[in-house]
Amino acid sequence: MESKRNYEFAESYTMNGGEGPYSYVQNSIFQRGALEASKEMIQEAIIRHFDMNKTLSSASFSNQIFLVDFGCSTGPNTFLAVHNILEAIQLKYQLEKRHNLALSDDHPHDHQIPIISQVFFNDHFSNDFNTLFKSLPPTRKYLAAGVPGSFHGRLFPNSSLHFIHSSCALHWLSKVPSEVMDRTSPAWNKGRIHYTNAGKQVVKAYSDQYAEDMMSFFRARAEELVDPRFPLGIRRYSTNPTWSLTICLHNKINKVNPNNLHKLNNA
Amino acid sequence: MESKRNYEFAESYTMNGGEGPYSYVQNSIFQRGALEASKEMIQEAIIRHFDMNKTLSSASFSNQIFLVDFGCSTGPNTFLAVHNILEAIQLKYQLEKRHNLALSDDHPHDHQIPIISQVFFNDHFSNDFNTLFKSLPPTRKYLAAGVPGSFHGRLFPNSSLHFIHSSCALHWLSKVPSEVMDRTSPAWNKGRIHYTNAGKQVVKAYSDQYAEDMMSFFRARAEELVDPRFPLGIRRYSTNPTWSLTICLHNKINKVNPNNLHKLNNA
Repeated sequence: MESKRNYEFAESYTMNGGEGPYSYVQNSIFQRGALEASKEMIQEAIIRHFDMNKTLSSASFSNQIFLVDFGCSTGPNTFLAVHNILEAIQLKYQLEKRHNLALSDDHPHDHQIPIISQVFFNDHFSNDFNTLFKSLPPTRKYLAAGVPGSFHGRLFPNSSLHFIHSSCALHWLSKVPSEVMDRTSPAWNKGRIHYTNAGKQVVKAYSDQYAEDMMSFFRARAEELVDPRFPLGIRRYSTNPTWSLTICLHNKINKVNPNNLHKLNNA
Repeated sequence: MESKRNYEFAESYTMNGGEGPYSYVQNSIFQRGALEASKEMIQEAIIRHFDMNKTLSSASFSNQIFLVDFGCSTGPNTFLAVHNILEAIQLKYQLEKRHNLALSDDHPHDHQIPIISQVFFNDHFSNDFNTLFKSLPPTRKYLAAGVPGSFHGRLFPNSSLHFIHSSCALHWLSKVPSEVMDRTSPAWNKGRIHYTNAGKQVVKAYSDQYAEDMMSFFRARAEELVDPRFPLGIRRYSTNPTWSLTICLHNKINKVNPNNLHKLNNA
């Protein structure tokens, strides 16, 4: 076997685990709002672009759908996100079934076989997966798995995912840019942990790191998605409201231009 | 979507989590011995029966291998089991490559593409997956995922696994047989939690429960395996040495006869 691929641990900082007063579980109402705001956008993307017939009839994934939430933390928001996505896929399925029946009655039982969905919940190795697993909705209608590791690298096999989602997670950088901690650099940030009102060099250092991280993210997903042209539901997040935006990419993600990421970063 | 499948929580008791003096991590040398004893048997099964060419060239899983360890607990034994399996697959791969090269030089670069392995670690929802994930070998050459839930039910999509493994885990029943707790039943076990020196009715109650659980296990795996005829590496475990045995099934597991399970149970 020629593979020399290693999957090492990256430096990581996760949300507070458990269910106590300072846990993410008890302090994520703001992030829930972001999810609710993007629900319609995700539904629209699935209705307009998700090729249900192709997905369900493919030899590799007959009647099976695979999706992932990157940066899931400990719940419960991730379960709402998954619920919204599966609800939209179900709606699309019903619409296509009605459409097919109207066109022809040759195959009235198409897709009557139960569909199996497998949902992967991803976050850093140090995420509290125990709390996540214990709070999985008991009446869920999907198979669940946890995938530990940084979403800036490969986490899944080739062409193994139909839909990827991330909310309030992609703004995290893989590391602090080294220049901002270097006293001899023009990007030296004087020990601060933010760049509000900082000089252009500091902002550029963070912006460059973000562009690099997003390229790593998209390169990995381009390998992992069954159809990299399918729109991704992604919601970035920042305490600065002008930064908060949802992007749905309709182009091939393996052809993303780094300059566009800079534009997104400075939006 | 017609699926009404629910994935509910089963009653479960897991190994002690963490890494303290009473943890499974610190108290599983005996189980490690069982793994080491079965290493050669698993290697032999893979060398003799694992169809590497078919696996790596299939449209669904081109150059990708999917395996699972059922009842993985918190480590480190599960990592040794996975290491042994992947080592055997690598050996088989090298042997087949040499064999193919000797037969023909038309395709000298067959399978030069790196192989990606995805390993699923399964145990109950209440298992300490946090400890498991944190102790994943940093130099491992596989993608890792945790799958919470009882192995007596469905955990994976259809035809999605190439190899399944379980060691010192399948002896756990899904529940205590109700008869042994019923004072009015001839199988009443007088409050004891074992059946050593118990009456035949008590032994039969446990035996019946085991047969039922194993049938559930095999039925689920028959759906999940790409090739249900492939031998499974399974090691049962008991404090009674006459019970400890390793079985490698060479028949279709969806045709397992419940009577044979009784025989295994009473071996």
